[in-house]
Amino acid sequence: MSRILVTGATGFIGRSAVPLLLEAGHEVHALGRSRPDAPVAAHHAVDLLDADAVRRVVGAAGASHLLHLAWYAEPGAYWRSPANLDWVSASLVLLRAFRDAGGVRAVSAGTCAEYAWGGDRLDEIATPCRPATLYGAAKDGFRRIAASYAETEGLSFATGRVFFLYGPGEKRGRLVADAARALLAGEPFPTSHGRQRRDFLHVRDVAGAFVALLGSSVSGPVNIGSGAAVPVRSLIEAVAAVAGGGEAIAFGARQLAPSEPDVVEAAPGRLFDEVGFRPRIALADGIAETVRWWRDRPVS
Amino acid sequence: MSRILVTGATGFIGRSAVPLLLEAGHEVHALGRSRPDAPVAAHHAVDLLDADAVRRVVGAAGASHLLHLAWYAEPGAYWRSPANLDWVSASLVLLRAFRDAGGVRAVSAGTCAEYAWGGDRLDEIATPCRPATLYGAAKDGFRRIAASYAETEGLSFATGRVFFLYGPGEKRGRLVADAARALLAGEPFPTSHGRQRRDFLHVRDVAGAFVALLGSSVSGPVNIGSGAAVPVRSLIEAVAAVAGGGEAIAFGARQLAPSEPDVVEAAPGRLFDEVGFRPRIALADGIAETVRWWRDRPVS
Repeated sequence: MSRILVTGATGFIGRSAVPLLLEAGHEVHALGRSRPDAPVAAHHAVDLLDADAVRRVVGAAGASHLLHLAWYAEPGAYWRSPANLDWVSASLVLLRAFRDAGGVRAVSAGTCAEYAWGGDRLDEIATPCRPATLYGAAKDGFRRIAASYAETEGLSFATGRVFFLYGPGEKRGRLVADAARALLAGEPFPTSHGRQRRDFLHVRDVAGAFVALLGSSVSGPVNIGSGAAVPVRSLIEAVAAVAGGGEAIAFGARQLAPSEPDVVEAAPGRLFDEVGFRPRIALADGIAETVRWWRDRPVS
Repeated sequence: MSRILVTGATGFIGRSAVPLLLEAGHEVHALGRSRPDAPVAAHHAVDLLDADAVRRVVGAAGASHLLHLAWYAEPGAYWRSPANLDWVSASLVLLRAFRDAGGVRAVSAGTCAEYAWGGDRLDEIATPCRPATLYGAAKDGFRRIAASYAETEGLSFATGRVFFLYGPGEKRGRLVADAARALLAGEPFPTSHGRQRRDFLHVRDVAGAFVALLGSSVSGPVNIGSGAAVPVRSLIEAVAAVAGGGEAIAFGARQLAPSEPDVVEAAPGRLFDEVGFRPRIALADGIAETVRWWRDRPVS
């Protein structure tokens, strides 16, 4: 049993990660403005952008492990928002306060947007990091600084590089959430041609990967992906297979941005072999669960 | 005439840069705890690590240009200090506040320690950045984030990568300062074998390069070096030629750290050709001036 500090505990990944940590018997301390639904040992109500408050609270918590999932994540806006700079600062303050309070192992959420996109499978060692967006650059820059700090201080540190994800409870403005809602409502769903392939994982698998990574001693960047990218078209068709409304999908109605490559696929070797985690939820099952979740929502 | 915000105005480089900016007719606003000796238009007394104060002061200053030289620089300690994290945060806050207040051109101080050392001449394009120290990683990480932010916001941004420097007023704990003091005092000066070659510039040339870079529209990293590395041995012998006491130099008495490469030399093409700046102070002249400066100090 470890005392684990979790940021972003009420976020999309955090809501799945906290129950897994509790099931494994850990003492979870959630750090952030909102209280998680799950029965955590402690909720430290703090604005993570308030450096002094974070230093005070993290210093008092005395956790051995840190799972840092929080970041600015407003759909659409997060790619270019200057808020990314604030989250770099907040993350550095957090990591240092955690270490100063005796922390030994930290895992933060990275992103496939740290890589130079456009080549083959994105590999932690072989693929250069050359982010095309401020979001990617901020995550990449933070990771570089944090890894060097961790090495200097003898702190064990890894980053889980999140690829594409979906699942119940996702925010609107994200692909699967918007498709499920539109098709269930019988609304038209204009989208890209859908031939681009993306590496999607169910959010519970993403959360499971983070929990496994946190429990391991693997350091450095670790892709959190399936290694099996699927055409976005087939993903949306899977939504329609459950939700109906397939005739309302207008493939090709929206232009794919020139920066969007044909394939974004994780090389999953580090996750599968070094961390020892394998995704468990088949795409068809996960999509069906997600569509049902949206069906059960009151229309709003 | 531009309104130029300068941090580190009372630091080693800043003390030479501010007079050059004033001579060129600029309105210099110094930002930091101590007041510069030079007659700046304004001194905003602020702790750069106090984010709220920096936002307030920078917002009110309304400068068009920013020369950001300040960083944690305690000799010896700065390579590994966690204070590097605080300076990343402070620098991000500063840059964002400057841009939010209408700033158009920013230059910050980088370091040759951002590069992977050990190869040929260090080149802004061809040499990978793979810092071996937390100081180098923090400067590298900040630059990556800042460059992406600047590109996103339409801000003109460059980094001057400082190599090795010397000159009057340098802190103790740095090579030329320590050699000059010891030899002038007739004390023994134990040092390395001195065969390693390093790219040294006089601090006024470094300051001149920063001022030229700030006045240009060159973006990205720019080496601030001579392109002509000299053996450390010859540098110390040049000190002894003026200070005397050459017999007290114990070359080889100190082990060179395994991380110290044979050569650290700047590829100066961007500085010379794109910025159009050439160093003016010959090493022998600069060393002689520096030794005289130490000779005129009261012993303390």
